[in-house]
Amino acid sequence: MKIKNDIIESSKRIDAHIHKTPVYTSELINALAGAQLFFKCENFQKMGAFKMRGATNAILQLSEAQKQKGVVTHSSGNFAQALALAAQKLGIKAFIVMPSNAPEVKKRAVKGYAGEITECEPTLEAREHTAKLIQTEKGATFVHPYNDFNVVLGNATAAKELLEDQSDLDCIIVPVGGGGLISGTALSALSFSKNCKVIGAEPFEVDDAYRSLKAGEIVYNATTNTIADGLKTSLGDITFNIINNYVEEIIRVTEQEIIEAMQLIWERMKIIVEPSSATALAAVLTNKQQFKGKKVGLMISGGNVDLKKLPF
Amino acid sequence: MKIKNDIIESSKRIDAHIHKTPVYTSELINALAGAQLFFKCENFQKMGAFKMRGATNAILQLSEAQKQKGVVTHSSGNFAQALALAAQKLGIKAFIVMPSNAPEVKKRAVKGYAGEITECEPTLEAREHTAKLIQTEKGATFVHPYNDFNVVLGNATAAKELLEDQSDLDCIIVPVGGGGLISGTALSALSFSKNCKVIGAEPFEVDDAYRSLKAGEIVYNATTNTIADGLKTSLGDITFNIINNYVEEIIRVTEQEIIEAMQLIWERMKIIVEPSSATALAAVLTNKQQFKGKKVGLMISGGNVDLKKLPF
Repeated sequence: MKIKNDIIESSKRIDAHIHKTPVYTSELINALAGAQLFFKCENFQKMGAFKMRGATNAILQLSEAQKQKGVVTHSSGNFAQALALAAQKLGIKAFIVMPSNAPEVKKRAVKGYAGEITECEPTLEAREHTAKLIQTEKGATFVHPYNDFNVVLGNATAAKELLEDQSDLDCIIVPVGGGGLISGTALSALSFSKNCKVIGAEPFEVDDAYRSLKAGEIVYNATTNTIADGLKTSLGDITFNIINNYVEEIIRVTEQEIIEAMQLIWERMKIIVEPSSATALAAVLTNKQQFKGKKVGLMISGGNVDLKKLPF
Repeated sequence: MKIKNDIIESSKRIDAHIHKTPVYTSELINALAGAQLFFKCENFQKMGAFKMRGATNAILQLSEAQKQKGVVTHSSGNFAQALALAAQKLGIKAFIVMPSNAPEVKKRAVKGYAGEITECEPTLEAREHTAKLIQTEKGATFVHPYNDFNVVLGNATAAKELLEDQSDLDCIIVPVGGGGLISGTALSALSFSKNCKVIGAEPFEVDDAYRSLKAGEIVYNATTNTIADGLKTSLGDITFNIINNYVEEIIRVTEQEIIEAMQLIWERMKIIVEPSSATALAAVLTNKQQFKGKKVGLMISGGNVDLKKLPF
């Protein structure tokens, strides 16, 4: 099992640089769901999201020569912060390409972690072009936010920890954006469980992963009108292939279901989770029959929310 | 040490009925404070607050004959829910006297725990009178929300756990309302530490405990205009005596300082804490010189907030 060894090696590699996050339960939510739920709390991860795992794993596999020249990525979300913080902790430079309309709060966070921001037009073309320029000019190594096997392997360590804590899960539900977390989770379920299924959760509003699985190829979202801002991204070829082979199904949920699940977690578990993370609980609560009596892991992907813009 | 034994016995008594809550830390907040902070997370306690400890300890010391007839209290806050839930779990009746203007959400919570609500006029006289009536009519035993030694001993178990986790704390900072939590904390610091000091945190707007210590007798608040709704209560004779003898000092904080500390905890630690709980961190951040380099415990008393009425 090469994959299994790769995940174990990734876990050892990043161990000193990340938090081993707790697994939480709630009697009340279990009673509501009619199932036993285990929340893997990556909202408590460094910089507040699982992305820290993949970013750290990718950086740690660079050669010394590459480390000298730093890393570059384009992202307006959690991965920008993750790469900046991971780079800072490991003493290397991070160049972050951000669209000019990225929220000030996100730019400040990246700067707070000593990331060097280059702004560009808010199009994917401009982002990719600008990142290419920095690769050429600075010699920095590009790290993709999710479509990178080392990033996926780093992300996989979250599910490895969850399965060490709860070895007999029937399934793990994972929010799907670019597919980096669910790909890693699927590889860990294959490696560290007997028959734990992996299920995606996605807003109806950005159901590109659901439709990609139906179509057998990557399809895209025409609009991205969802509160789950971490799930707007499209799949990459690496993540699509893993999902296509190893993910059981994708469950879609409405915006209202996401908000209600998020409120339930905040009110009853007293933890702050992103709307993206709440899709996993929403998937259970809207499909109670399917999960009845089961032991279900839920990936709480992150807890970075703007407290001034809450949906309640 | 009778007190020490009493706390140990209380701890054993309630052990199966409460959560042993985690102790959290934050590198970022430590750096901001210039001190090592240890947050005892009673927001993760059953029903979301430390009150569950005292309520459970009080009920478990009733005789069988008393248990048959149930318990009664008057409260519009966390203790109403705590007594109702503790009673429900132990299979006895709880009569809860609530002022007619208590928020619907609190009434629903008490009903959700099978508490039997009797409404009364929103005055202390009416509350006490109504509770007395129920004592007479139903034979129920009155349990005071804080001015009851068994409640104080139950609350003391939180600091006992914190000191087991971190045996060399220089001090523990505790929000002060009726004084039930800080009294218990002071007794545990006496019993389970060499020289851990206990310090109160209180809003300037309801600084009755601060003024009571100065005056050497219980004084009251003329107004209760604070966001820290759990801290509006006055001290009782039992809690005042313990505080007067064993609490080092009371630090007062402004409403703005409370809100900023609360936001810092939400944003950086990803946990939901009540405004009352944030007073402890506010006390550190506004007195950095005093706490510089120290190991400081902070009692996060609870996490019950109305998400529709946030101060950010």
